[in-house]
Amino acid sequence: MQQGTEPATVDESPGEYTLTREKTTGTTYDFDNARGWRKYRVLRPCLGMYHDVKRRLPFYWSDITDAWTYRTIASIIRMYFVNLLPALAYTLDMYRRTGEFFGVNEALFASALAAMVFSILGAQPLTIVGITGLISLFNYTIYDIIEIYDISIYPQFMCWTAIWAAIFHWLVAVWNICDYMRYVTDFSSQSFALYVGIIYIIKGVEEIVNEFTQYGSTPGFLTTLIAILYFGTVYGLEKLGSSTVFKPSIREVLADYSYVFATLFWVGFGHFPGRLKEAHISHVPTVGAFEPTQPRSWFIKFWEIDVKWVFVAIPFGFLIMLLFYYDHNVSSLTAQARQFPLKKPGGFHWDFFLLGCTTFVAGLLGLPMPNGLVPQAPVHTDSLTVYETELKVIKTEEGEGAEIRRPIVNATAVVEQRVSHFVMGLALIGTMTGPLLTVLSTMPAAVFCGVFFVVGWGSIETNGIVQKIIFVFSEKRFIHPDEPLHTVQKRKILLYVGLQLLGVLSCVAISQTIAAIGFPVLICALIPLRVYCLPKMFSAHELHVMDDLTADNKAVLASLGGAPLLPEVRMARERHARGEATGYLPHEEEEYGLERKYSERRRGVSRQRVGSVHR
Amino acid sequence: MQQGTEPATVDESPGEYTLTREKTTGTTYDFDNARGWRKYRVLRPCLGMYHDVKRRLPFYWSDITDAWTYRTIASIIRMYFVNLLPALAYTLDMYRRTGEFFGVNEALFASALAAMVFSILGAQPLTIVGITGLISLFNYTIYDIIEIYDISIYPQFMCWTAIWAAIFHWLVAVWNICDYMRYVTDFSSQSFALYVGIIYIIKGVEEIVNEFTQYGSTPGFLTTLIAILYFGTVYGLEKLGSSTVFKPSIREVLADYSYVFATLFWVGFGHFPGRLKEAHISHVPTVGAFEPTQPRSWFIKFWEIDVKWVFVAIPFGFLIMLLFYYDHNVSSLTAQARQFPLKKPGGFHWDFFLLGCTTFVAGLLGLPMPNGLVPQAPVHTDSLTVYETELKVIKTEEGEGAEIRRPIVNATAVVEQRVSHFVMGLALIGTMTGPLLTVLSTMPAAVFCGVFFVVGWGSIETNGIVQKIIFVFSEKRFIHPDEPLHTVQKRKILLYVGLQLLGVLSCVAISQTIAAIGFPVLICALIPLRVYCLPKMFSAHELHVMDDLTADNKAVLASLGGAPLLPEVRMARERHARGEATGYLPHEEEEYGLERKYSERRRGVSRQRVGSVHR
Repeated sequence: MQQGTEPATVDESPGEYTLTREKTTGTTYDFDNARGWRKYRVLRPCLGMYHDVKRRLPFYWSDITDAWTYRTIASIIRMYFVNLLPALAYTLDMYRRTGEFFGVNEALFASALAAMVFSILGAQPLTIVGITGLISLFNYTIYDIIEIYDISIYPQFMCWTAIWAAIFHWLVAVWNICDYMRYVTDFSSQSFALYVGIIYIIKGVEEIVNEFTQYGSTPGFLTTLIAILYFGTVYGLEKLGSSTVFKPSIREVLADYSYVFATLFWVGFGHFPGRLKEAHISHVPTVGAFEPTQPRSWFIKFWEIDVKWVFVAIPFGFLIMLLFYYDHNVSSLTAQARQFPLKKPGGFHWDFFLLGCTTFVAGLLGLPMPNGLVPQAPVHTDSLTVYETELKVIKTEEGEGAEIRRPIVNATAVVEQRVSHFVMGLALIGTMTGPLLTVLSTMPAAVFCGVFFVVGWGSIETNGIVQKIIFVFSEKRFIHPDEPLHTVQKRKILLYVGLQLLGVLSCVAISQTIAAIGFPVLICALIPLRVYCLPKMFSAHELHVMDDLTADNKAVLASLGGAPLLPEVRMARERHARGEATGYLPHEEEEYGLERKYSERRRGVSRQRVGSVHR
Repeated sequence: MQQGTEPATVDESPGEYTLTREKTTGTTYDFDNARGWRKYRVLRPCLGMYHDVKRRLPFYWSDITDAWTYRTIASIIRMYFVNLLPALAYTLDMYRRTGEFFGVNEALFASALAAMVFSILGAQPLTIVGITGLISLFNYTIYDIIEIYDISIYPQFMCWTAIWAAIFHWLVAVWNICDYMRYVTDFSSQSFALYVGIIYIIKGVEEIVNEFTQYGSTPGFLTTLIAILYFGTVYGLEKLGSSTVFKPSIREVLADYSYVFATLFWVGFGHFPGRLKEAHISHVPTVGAFEPTQPRSWFIKFWEIDVKWVFVAIPFGFLIMLLFYYDHNVSSLTAQARQFPLKKPGGFHWDFFLLGCTTFVAGLLGLPMPNGLVPQAPVHTDSLTVYETELKVIKTEEGEGAEIRRPIVNATAVVEQRVSHFVMGLALIGTMTGPLLTVLSTMPAAVFCGVFFVVGWGSIETNGIVQKIIFVFSEKRFIHPDEPLHTVQKRKILLYVGLQLLGVLSCVAISQTIAAIGFPVLICALIPLRVYCLPKMFSAHELHVMDDLTADNKAVLASLGGAPLLPEVRMARERHARGEATGYLPHEEEEYGLERKYSERRRGVSRQRVGSVHR
C-alpha cells in the first residue's frame, strides 16, 4: 500500500554514500596505507570516533525528515514486540536465577535507556540495542560464582563489573580497536548465530521444564502446547507473508504484525475461562511501576564492598567487553548487511563508545547491561525496507510460450531514520507505567517459550552451516551446475562445517557450566583461527567459495578502515607474482567478495526478505 | 533400491488392457449403443458382473506371480498401519457412543474379513476395504435413535439393517446400477473428500475433548500435545520423503514407513516414566482374544426382535447401501485414478456384489460393516507404484548455461497383485491374538487423534476446492498464463466452489445431528445436481476447465459401460451442428477429458505422488 510513495521519501540529496565518501568526510579513515607511527592505531586515539561522527552528522536532519512514511509506523509496532518479548523472556530466566535481583522493571528500564541513547546519539540508529539472552547467561553465572562466597555483595559486584566493562569499552573505542571487526567472516559469525539459536531453544525448553517443576503437570503441558502453537502461528503467518496468496498489502500486514497477532491471540487463549484458566499457568512477575524489583533505591551503593572485589571484577568486566565487542558489532554488521540498499554510513567506534556509556549507567542503576541484539538486529532494517514483489518470467527453450514464472522480491529502498527507534523507546517507557505493567502481568510465560523458539529457530533455519550440511546431503543432480560449492570437495566442506560446529558445541557446552562467562573468549578465538589457521587447511579458492567477509558493504567498511587483505588472498597473490600455480581460479582475484554465495542464491528463489527474524 | 528390478515384474503378457479390451472380453459391456429392450439395464441382470469377472479372470495367476518384489513388502507394512490405525481410531469413538457394543475386536474382525474376501475374490484387489469414520457415524446415530425406544434390541436391529443393506447391494449389482458412477465428477467427489476430511478433523478434536471430560486436564493437555506432534511427525517425514535431501532409497524408506516411525515413537513417548506416565492418558480398551466386546456369542440372534423393527430397518439398510454406493465406488475409482499407470482392469459390479456379502456377514456377526476407505484408498496403489525421480533440466533463454533444474517424479509402473492385500489381512487376524492385543492396549488414544488429523488434513490440503480458493486469492501474475482457470471469470469460479461448499457444509451440519444417517442422500444428490443443473449455470467451457470425470481411466470406464455423454457436451454439440456459437473453444471437443487441470499441473511441479495420504 505504500510502495508507491516511499522510494521518494528516502532523501537522496547527500548522494549515494559509497560514491561520495571522500566528499563528505574530507579524508578517508585508513591505517593500511599510512606510514611510520601513523600505522599504529593506539597512537592516534579517537580517530575512528572522530571520523564516525564526521561521516554521519551531515545526515542527522534527514534522519528525522525521512521518517514520515507508513513503514516507520509498521516498524515501530513490529520492533516494540520483537524487542520487548525476547527481553522479557530472558528476564524471566534471569529473574529466577539471580535471586530475583533483575526483574521486569530493570529489563524495561535498560531497554528504554539503550533505545533513547542510540536513537538520539548513535551513528547507526538502525542497530537496536536491548537485553540479550547472553547477558542473562552472564548475570546468572556471575550470581552462581558470587553465591559461593557472599551473595549479599552481588549488586555492588555487578556494578563494579559494569564500571570496568565500561572502561574497557572506552579504551577499545578510543584506540580504534573496532577495526578488527573487518576480519570477521561468515566462519565465526555463522557459528555465533547458530550458537545463539541453540541457546535460545535451550532457554525455551528450560522455561517449560521450570513450569513443570514449579507448578506441576497440568500447567506444564498447557505451557508446552501454547509454546508450540505460538511458534507455529508466527512461523505460519510469516510464511504466508512470503507466499503469493492475497494482495501484496495484505501479505505485508501479515508479515509485519505476525508477532502482534500471535501474542494477542495466545495471551487471550491462556485466559479462557474453564480448563485453560484453571490450569494456572505462570505469568510474568511484576512489581510497582518505576520501582526496582528488590526493595532498594535505583542507585547502587557501589562503595559498600571490600576493595578486593573491585579487583576481582576486572576480568569479569573484560569478558563482558569481549562479549559486547563481538555481539554488538556483529549485530550492527547484520543490521547493515549487503541485502539492504543502505545509503547512509554507520560508525562502529562511536557506537561502541556509547555502549560503554550505557554499560556504565546500567551498572550504577543495577540494570542488566544492554547491547546489540543478534538475531533481531536485521529485523529493524528489514521492517524499514520497501520491498517490491516483481514478476520474473523466464522464457524456456521448450517452445512457443513455454515459460516459468517466479516472484522476485526486491529491496528497493530503506527508510533510514532515527524516529522509529526513538518512538519504540518511548513505548518501552510507557510500558513501565502502572496500567501497562498490569497488562504485562497477564502474559503467560508460555508465550515467551514460544518467542524463544521463534527467535532461536530463525537463527538456525537459514544459517550457513545448516545450509552447507543440507547441500552435502542433497542429491547433486538437482542443484544448479553453476553452484560454486560444486567446485569444493565434499571432504573439505565437511571439514569446514566440522570446525564451525566444534566452535558452536564448545560454546554450548561451556554455557551449561559455571565457566559460561568464558564463552566470549571462545567466540572471539574463532576470528584469529580463521585468519591464521584456515588458510593453511584450505585453498584460497575453497575459502572464497565457502567463506565471505561479514562486513562487505563499502559504507560499513569505511568506518572499519577499509576492506582487509586476508592471508590466503595475500599468499595467492605472492605465489601468482612468483609465477606459481595458485589453486585460485583466474577470474576470482577481481571478483573476490562480489560473487553471490550458495545460501543467498537459494534465498533469492523465494522471497528475499532475508533479514526477517526467522528466515 | 528396487527401481531397477520392478518394471520387469509387472506382467505385461495380457497386453495393455485398454488396447486389447475386445480381445480379452469377447464383447464390450455397453448399453449406450444397444437397441430396443437391450437398452434397459434392469432387463439384462448380472451382465455387469459377468463382464467384470470375465475381464479380470485372465489376470488372476499374474496377480500372484507379480507380487515377488520389495514394493509388496513395503506396501504390506504401510497398509497395515494406514488401515489399522484409522480403524481403531473410529472404533474408539464408536465404542464409546454405542454403549460399548462395537469394540476393538469387532473392528479387527471386520477389517480382516473384508481383506480376505476382497484380496481373494475382488475384481480390483487394490481397493482396500475396512472400517470408515462414516460407518462409525452411522452406527452411533442409529444407536441414538434406537435408544429413544428400546436399546436392548440394538444388536438385532443393526443385524436387520445389514441384511436389508446387503439385499439392496445385490440388487444394485445385479441390475448394473453401478454404471451411474461414471457420471460422478470432481464436483461431487471433491465435495465428498472435503466433507470426509472435515469430519475426521472433528473426530480428532472430539477425541481430545473426551480425554478432558473423562480423565481431566493433565491427560487432556498431554493428549493434545501428542496428537499435534504425531501429526507433525508424519507430515514432516512425508515432506522429507518428497524433498531432494538424502539418497532416493532413504527418502523412500521415510515416506513408506512414516506412520510406523511416528507410531512407535509416540506410543513409547506416552509411556516414559515420570510426568508422562503419571499423566495417565487413556489407552485402547481391549478384551480377550477373539471374543466379542460384549458378553455375547459372535452370532446375533436376529430373530429375537419384534417384526415391526424388521420393516423399520428397511430405510436404514437403504441409506447404508446409498452410503456404500458412493463411498465404496469412489474409493475404488481413486485407487485406480489416472496418475497410476494401471494395466489390469477393475470391476465395479462384481465388487459391489461382494460388498453386499461382507455387509451380510458383518450384520450376522455384529461387526461394523466394512467398505472402501476414501482417503486411504489411493495409498495402497501409491505404495505399490514404482516412482523414479528424474532430473528435468529446463534450458532458459537467458544465455549460455542458464537453466533451471527440477526433480520430476514419474510413476513408471504399479505392482498390481493380490498378495499385499491378502498378507495385510493375515496380519490383521494376527493382531486379534492375545499377545498383539496386549500391544494394542498400550497405545494411547492421543496417537489416534494424531491419525485423525493426518488422514483428515490429507483429504483437505490437496482438495480441488481448496486449490481453487487459493487460486482465486492468489496474485494472478505469478501463475502461468496457460493456466486454464484464467479463462473462467472469478465470479464463476466462486459460484462453482460455493455450490461445492454448500454441499460440504450441509453434510457436516447434518452429521452433528440425529439426522446424520441422511447425509448419503445429500452426497448422492450432488451427482444429478451436477448433471442436470450445472450445465444451465455454467458454459460447457467453464465446466470443462473446472470439472472432470472422476472415472477417467479407460480400463475403469470399461466396467461402467464406457465414458458418459455429459449434457453440456451434448448441448454444445447440438448447437454446433446448428451452426450456433457454443461458448466452447474449437479444440476442446476432442480434448475433452484429456487436458490436465489446474491442481494436477500444480502438483506436477513438486513430487507427483499425489495419491499419498496427505498429498
